[in-house]
Amino acid sequence: MKISNIDDTICAIATGGGISAIAIIRISGKDAIRITNNIFSKNLEKVKSHTIHLGDIKDGEDIIDEVLISIFKENKSYTGEETIEISCHGSNYIQNKILRLLINNGCRMANAGEFTLRAFKNGKIDLSQAESVADLIASESKSEQQVAIKQLKGGFSNKLKELRNKLIDFASLIELELDFSEEDVEFADRNKFYNLLTEIKNEISYLLESFNLGNVIKNGIPVSIIGPPNVGKSTLLNSLLNDDRAIVSEIAGTTRDTIEDKLIINGINFRFIDTAGIRNTKDKIENLGIKRTFDKAKKSEIILYLIDASKEIEKQIKNLEKIQKDNPGKYIVIINKIDVNGNIKNIKDAIYISAKKEIGIDKLKEKLIDLTNQSKLSNNETIVTNIRHYEELTLTLQEINSIIEGLDNNISGEFLSINIRQALLHIGSITGEISNDTLLGNIFSKFCIGK
Amino acid sequence: MKISNIDDTICAIATGGGISAIAIIRISGKDAIRITNNIFSKNLEKVKSHTIHLGDIKDGEDIIDEVLISIFKENKSYTGEETIEISCHGSNYIQNKILRLLINNGCRMANAGEFTLRAFKNGKIDLSQAESVADLIASESKSEQQVAIKQLKGGFSNKLKELRNKLIDFASLIELELDFSEEDVEFADRNKFYNLLTEIKNEISYLLESFNLGNVIKNGIPVSIIGPPNVGKSTLLNSLLNDDRAIVSEIAGTTRDTIEDKLIINGINFRFIDTAGIRNTKDKIENLGIKRTFDKAKKSEIILYLIDASKEIEKQIKNLEKIQKDNPGKYIVIINKIDVNGNIKNIKDAIYISAKKEIGIDKLKEKLIDLTNQSKLSNNETIVTNIRHYEELTLTLQEINSIIEGLDNNISGEFLSINIRQALLHIGSITGEISNDTLLGNIFSKFCIGK
Repeated sequence: MKISNIDDTICAIATGGGISAIAIIRISGKDAIRITNNIFSKNLEKVKSHTIHLGDIKDGEDIIDEVLISIFKENKSYTGEETIEISCHGSNYIQNKILRLLINNGCRMANAGEFTLRAFKNGKIDLSQAESVADLIASESKSEQQVAIKQLKGGFSNKLKELRNKLIDFASLIELELDFSEEDVEFADRNKFYNLLTEIKNEISYLLESFNLGNVIKNGIPVSIIGPPNVGKSTLLNSLLNDDRAIVSEIAGTTRDTIEDKLIINGINFRFIDTAGIRNTKDKIENLGIKRTFDKAKKSEIILYLIDASKEIEKQIKNLEKIQKDNPGKYIVIINKIDVNGNIKNIKDAIYISAKKEIGIDKLKEKLIDLTNQSKLSNNETIVTNIRHYEELTLTLQEINSIIEGLDNNISGEFLSINIRQALLHIGSITGEISNDTLLGNIFSKFCIGK
Repeated sequence: MKISNIDDTICAIATGGGISAIAIIRISGKDAIRITNNIFSKNLEKVKSHTIHLGDIKDGEDIIDEVLISIFKENKSYTGEETIEISCHGSNYIQNKILRLLINNGCRMANAGEFTLRAFKNGKIDLSQAESVADLIASESKSEQQVAIKQLKGGFSNKLKELRNKLIDFASLIELELDFSEEDVEFADRNKFYNLLTEIKNEISYLLESFNLGNVIKNGIPVSIIGPPNVGKSTLLNSLLNDDRAIVSEIAGTTRDTIEDKLIINGINFRFIDTAGIRNTKDKIENLGIKRTFDKAKKSEIILYLIDASKEIEKQIKNLEKIQKDNPGKYIVIINKIDVNGNIKNIKDAIYISAKKEIGIDKLKEKLIDLTNQSKLSNNETIVTNIRHYEELTLTLQEINSIIEGLDNNISGEFLSINIRQALLHIGSITGEISNDTLLGNIFSKFCIGK
C-alpha cells in the first residue's frame, strides 16, 4: 500500500455494506466542512464541535437525502483533523451518490485504515494503539475485545514506555562511565548495571511469554479431542454448542452459525480439532495415524481425553498414560456415557459426563476455563497479541542479551551503546516512534475502509 | 406483526450487518437516557439535545468499547421520543454485547420499522411519509430515490390534503342543501356540485395514472428486445452495461454485479427481457413461440426491435409492421451492425448502431429515456408508487363515481354523505388519519430492523 498524501480530504462509508436503516459516511481533512457545505442545505462553518445538524444533502436542486451531520472540529476528532459524519438512509444508491458528490467537490476515497493512520500521524494515538483498533473491530469474544481495548487505552504503550525509560537509564549510566573512563575512579557500580539489565530482560521475557496466551486469544485456543471411535466426540461438541447457542439466541445476527467447531465459553474462543480415533492395533498404517494424533495433541493447548464408560476401561487408560506424560497440565480426562454405566469411579482428576444427557457439561466448561491461564486476563496484565510486536520484542531481547554478554567480556561502552540504540529502535517501532511507509502500509492495509 | 407497547424503550442495531469500521445502535423511549447512563462512563442527564459525547461503555469494571454517543431529546428526535445513538466499533462481539447490556438494563429489542412506527404514532410524520422511508432505503436508482424523498418531504401528503379539503367542501355544500331542503329556494347550484366532483375525479384519475410510471420506477421499466437470432442482442446489452459500469467504477461496493439484465440509465431502472428470435416460418410450433414473443412485447413498456443490417432487410421489416400497429409509441427500431453494412438508410425513426463497435449507443439511451415519460418526474409532479395507495385511491374514485351517479338520479343528501364519508375514509387511510394495528403491522413489518 502506498501511503497517500495526508493533505487531502478523504471520505468513505464507515458502516457495514448493503441496505440498512442508516449508513455513516465519514469525511476527514482540512476541507471537510467546506466541501460538505457545498452539498448541504445549512451552513456548517460556524457551528460548534460535537454537535448534530438535520438537513438535506443536495445535488443542485435535487434533494438526495434528509441526513444528520455530526461535526468534529480540528484537534477534537478521532483523526485530529476536521471531521464530518453524515448519517444517511442506508440505500446503496444514496450512499454511493453522496460519496460521488463529495468526490466531485474535492474529496478523495480513503484508503483502508486511513482515518486511523491519520490519527497516528497527527499524534492522537501511537502505533500499537492504532493496531488495537483493527483488533477491536475483528474481536469476536470477550477475551479478544478485552485485550484490544486495553491496548487501545494505552496499557501496552505504557508498559513499553517504562521499558524504554529503563533502557535510557541504562544508556545514561554507560555515558557516565564513558565520560569518566580516563580517570581512575570506580564510578558506576557493575551490580547496578546487571540489576537493571536483568529487570529489563525479565519484563521482555514476560511479555514474550504472554504472546502464547495472546495468540490463542486471537485465534482460539486449540483443543484436540482424543478417544476411540464412537466415544461421543461430536455429541460432546453439540451439547457444548447447543448450550451456548441458547444463551445468545435472544439477539439476532450473531455469527455463531458460520463457525463450525469454534466455541466461545466464558468469553474465551476455543477451536476444537477432531482427531483419528485411538485403538490398540498392530496394523502399521493405523499406528502411523495414531502417532499423528499424538503429535496433534502435543501441538494443541488443551487435550480432551475421552473414555467410554460403557466399554472396557483398562485398555482405554493405557494410552492415557502417554498423553499425561507428554502433556503435563494440558489435558482433561473425561469419562463419557455415565448414563449407560454409572459405576466407573475413582479415575484420578477425571470429569464424569453424559454428553447425550448433558450431564457434567458445566464442570467440563469450568475445567476448560481453568486451563486457559486466563488469570492473566483478569489481572489486568499486559498481553502481547500482535506478531509484529512479538518479533520486535524478540529482537530487543537479543540486543539486551548482547549487552549482558558484552559486559561479561568487558566490551567498551561505545560498542554497548550500539546495542542500546538497536534495542531502543525495536521498542520504538512498536509504538511508532520509529516507522516508515512500508511498515505503515503493511499495518493499515489490513484495516477496514472507513476506519 | 403485533404492534408492541409503545411505552417500552427499544434498541436495535441500525447499520449494516457484519464487521465494519463503525456500527450504530439506536435507543428510543422514555428511559433511553436513564438506561444508557447505567452503562456509560459519563452522566448524560443534563446534556443538550443534538450533542455528541465521547466515553466508555462499561459492563461493571470491564470497558466494552470507547464510543460516541449522540443525544436527541424528546420532541427533537426522529421518533419524537428521547433517543440515543451509540457509535461503536463494528465488531460483532461489541455490537451484540452492547445490545445485551441495554436489554439487561431495561430496553427491549425493537421490531422491524418500530422507530418509524413511533415517529408516525407520535405525529412526526404521516403514514405515507413513513412508507416512503422504506422506499428510500430500498432505492437503487435516482428516480426511485427522487420519488421517495418527495414523498418523505410531504409532497404526496399535501396533494392528499388538497383532495380531502375539496371533498370536505363538497360535503359542506351537501349539508347546506339538507338544511334548506324543506324550504322552496334553489340554494346550491347543481353545476357547482358537478364541477367540484369532476375536479376531484380528475385529480384522482391523474394520480392513478401516475401509478403506471411509479410502478415501473420501483420495479424497473420492462424493455423487451426483439429480433432474429444473432442480431446482436447480448452484444447490445453488454455495450450498454459496460458503459454504465465505467461510470460507477470509481466507487467500490455498488451492487451492479449482482443485477443481471437490470440497467440504470440516467437514474432510471430498466429491466431487459430476452425474447425468442423472430423468423418467418411455417413451422406451427415455432410460430407459437413467435406469438408468445409478440405477447411479451405487448406487456413490456418499451420494445427494442433489432434489425440486422448485414442481412436482407425486407423480410425483417415485415414483422415490424405488426409491432408498430400493436404498440404505438412504445417501440424503438434499431438497425444494428452498421459497421458491416453502412448503406442501410431511410428506415423511418430508426436508430443506427453498431453494438460491437459501440456506435450510436448514446442515441439509443436518449431515446430510451425519452420514452419513459420521465417529464413527470422532473416536473415535480406527484407519482403514486405504492400499491396500497393505488388501491385506496381506486376505492375513493369508486365512491366519487357513486356520488356523481347519485346526483344524476336525484338521490337524497343523506345517502350521498355516506359515500362522502367512505371517500374520506379511504383517503385518510393513506396518510394514516385512519389506521388500525393490522394495517400498521403489514406496513412496518416490511421495514429494516433499526429504522
